Amino acid sequence: MARTASLSGFPEWLPEERLVELHVLDTLRRVFELHGFASIETRAVETVGQLLRKGEIDKEVYGLSRLQEDEGDNPVKGGKADPNALALHFDLTVPFARYVVENAGYLAFPFRRYQIQKVWRGERPQEGRAREFTQADIDVVGDGELPFRYDVEIALVIAEALSALPIPDFRLRINNRKLAEGFYRGIGLDDTAGVLRSIDKLEKIGPAKVAELLKAELGATEDQAAKALQLAAIRTEDTSFVAQVRALGVSNELLDEGLDELEQVIDAAVQRAPGKVLADLSIARGLDYYTGTVVETVLVGHEQLGSICSGGRYDALASKGNRKFPGVGLSIGVTRLVSRILSQDLAKASRSVPTAVLVALNHDDSWGAAQDVAALLRSRGIPTEVAARAEKFGKQIKFADRRGIPFVWFTDEDGTHQVKDIRTGEQVLAAPETWMPPVGDLTVQVETTSPAAASV
Amino acid sequence: MARTASLSGFPEWLPEERLVELHVLDTLRRVFELHGFASIETRAVETVGQLLRKGEIDKEVYGLSRLQEDEGDNPVKGGKADPNALALHFDLTVPFARYVVENAGYLAFPFRRYQIQKVWRGERPQEGRAREFTQADIDVVGDGELPFRYDVEIALVIAEALSALPIPDFRLRINNRKLAEGFYRGIGLDDTAGVLRSIDKLEKIGPAKVAELLKAELGATEDQAAKALQLAAIRTEDTSFVAQVRALGVSNELLDEGLDELEQVIDAAVQRAPGKVLADLSIARGLDYYTGTVVETVLVGHEQLGSICSGGRYDALASKGNRKFPGVGLSIGVTRLVSRILSQDLAKASRSVPTAVLVALNHDDSWGAAQDVAALLRSRGIPTEVAARAEKFGKQIKFADRRGIPFVWFTDEDGTHQVKDIRTGEQVLAAPETWMPPVGDLTVQVETTSPAAASV
Repeated sequence: MARTASLSGFPEWLPEERLVELHVLDTLRRVFELHGFASIETRAVETVGQLLRKGEIDKEVYGLSRLQEDEGDNPVKGGKADPNALALHFDLTVPFARYVVENAGYLAFPFRRYQIQKVWRGERPQEGRAREFTQADIDVVGDGELPFRYDVEIALVIAEALSALPIPDFRLRINNRKLAEGFYRGIGLDDTAGVLRSIDKLEKIGPAKVAELLKAELGATEDQAAKALQLAAIRTEDTSFVAQVRALGVSNELLDEGLDELEQVIDAAVQRAPGKVLADLSIARGLDYYTGTVVETVLVGHEQLGSICSGGRYDALASKGNRKFPGVGLSIGVTRLVSRILSQDLAKASRSVPTAVLVALNHDDSWGAAQDVAALLRSRGIPTEVAARAEKFGKQIKFADRRGIPFVWFTDEDGTHQVKDIRTGEQVLAAPETWMPPVGDLTVQVETTSPAAASV
Repeated sequence: MARTASLSGFPEWLPEERLVELHVLDTLRRVFELHGFASIETRAVETVGQLLRKGEIDKEVYGLSRLQEDEGDNPVKGGKADPNALALHFDLTVPFARYVVENAGYLAFPFRRYQIQKVWRGERPQEGRAREFTQADIDVVGDGELPFRYDVEIALVIAEALSALPIPDFRLRINNRKLAEGFYRGIGLDDTAGVLRSIDKLEKIGPAKVAELLKAELGATEDQAAKALQLAAIRTEDTSFVAQVRALGVSNELLDEGLDELEQVIDAAVQRAPGKVLADLSIARGLDYYTGTVVETVLVGHEQLGSICSGGRYDALASKGNRKFPGVGLSIGVTRLVSRILSQDLAKASRSVPTAVLVALNHDDSWGAAQDVAALLRSRGIPTEVAARAEKFGKQIKFADRRGIPFVWFTDEDGTHQVKDIRTGEQVLAAPETWMPPVGDLTVQVETTSPAAASV
């Protein structure tokens, strides 16, 4: 990580860094599959019309054009994006919604899937924000309706998944759009989207400036602005936020519904993921399509990195005629996490290659016999390489040492086999049919580099 | 596979199809890692200048432009591609070469890596040819020089990897550029690239038309054209091609070198991958950068699908000043293979979801207790879902049945646990701390659907 990407915003990992990323991806996949989420991938490309249907993120989208088509194929014409042109997806939620609608006849609802893919955004790169990055999403989508219980479950699955990663402690900060919108209506502010947009700026500009915005842009009174800010200041580790909201003396049906939903999520989390979840009534989430639960996640001690896992409930993102497919999902920013793990040395791989054993050569013509030994080791799951040349043993050992390969295998003229642990120098007689390395050496281990990493 | 992609050339799989693809990807990864190949990924994007440096495939490249930049960011200006513009990579070899040069100071040579990623080509889509598809590559790259033995090894690793997949029998068809070029020079045809381009058309237009091309375009005599075609007609399962080439009476130093190299590959393959490899002297490979071994691979009985695995030796693809990084590698067309497996029902997944057990609900308020059962099962590696609603047991069983989930778990009021195999109806007492499903039900199995699939 001393290196900088040769193309700004497009990070690439060295092999030993990639092993850390692979460990993160494998861990997420294992947890998601243990919870019954099925893998899907969607194409990298959507039509511009599909991508810009929701939200206001057109400025971040990469359009595609075939080079040989010259100007005729340009996705932008006269300053306007052609809705039929192709562009790279900027998240996995919008493509997933399209996939569900297209394949509704082939899916069993509620449909639960995970999706781990690269996405692209033409934003200005900075720490924690790349132009190409990997997201790992889980969503559950229903046909017509989706029980609220899935909002609770999704939060718990994500807490379990994040807990399994070599990262510092984290907090899911959870709010509910119904709660916020109902509250704003209850105090007479009907442009709830406008209020949310202002509240979303709280961390950046502070409460005084948000109050000014609410008054100037939305015509809020002093009292209305104060109430909205009082709501946003509520943050509890248990369900006591309910009483705090009630104490503000606002009544509204949607508010009641939102309070009940958020209470269910927090109540379950207190029991099943203690210390990992907060009710945080300042969370707004930028995207238009959320309709209930909203989540952002911070790494404790790394708050300035931004949210490492976000999402929520969307009741109207996907529809087919009158048929609606409400969903709830969360998206982990894998590249953001891995960048941080690497830049702060929070975890590292035990070696830079999968290889556990290098089979050395006595003579150039012993390559075939060495391959026989290697095949026996591999047949029992031991990653093995054969030296390409019968150099001096010292050079062959150095070849292994430079890669972190722990064992070198020697076969004498008389067919006796020996294996050397090049870290200790210990060399023992061994048979390729039965010898096994210690389990910690069999495959690459990725471990947190210090106890501090888990607590910071 | 009755479905057609909603965007031509951009296939997407249903969850049960994706499980077949995942099985293919996991199998390739396992074999590659057992042979000590390290994983890397490169960014999806290269500069146009980088992509078009070698070969003549600019017409297939997708350029990128940020939509908000309007015409100013168009990668094509006045009919010419801007070399600094960004474009999607069309293979993994060119990006890998760039990666090696950029990171040479951090890599241990010979560097062996595998890389499994999507690539994009703006070609006309047809069966076996998509615009977005996944390739799985292995390469070994040296610093300055690379022992020829790696050419042999790469072919053997790929034969082992393909043998582990649920696909029909296959043949690696191997040739050597030195052999061909030396032979052409030996008969007085010095535009060896021109001859290769004509020979590359053999399967499409036949030998008579190739002979005409050689005479018309390269000024070959009748005898020279006949000799070139005699060479291209040689195809042997063992090293007898050497004698057949010698019998043509041509002598040239480069020819000798190529004969020796190809003989080494075929000799090793006869012993270590019997029946999987052919010396096929008609193989030319279109791309300019190959300098020795060249490989194409056909599925037996599916030859019209085209090559499912191609590559070879390249001595000059990557360089940094005077420093050269010769390499050898092969690339498996994963999407082409998976499309064929699915369209011909060659293999299928045992169920459409990872879930092995659905924990049923007695009452809506037993969800917490059901989650406790599920957590115990998951802690022992059993993928488990909890029903979202306490519907009638018949409906909960149907929920499992529609997904192929084999087991449903019931907990009585008195805390007694029972698990039902919904395929047989058998229901037994069980404890969540100890019960295990049969190993074949624990995770999704992908199996060839008929013995015919392996032999066609």
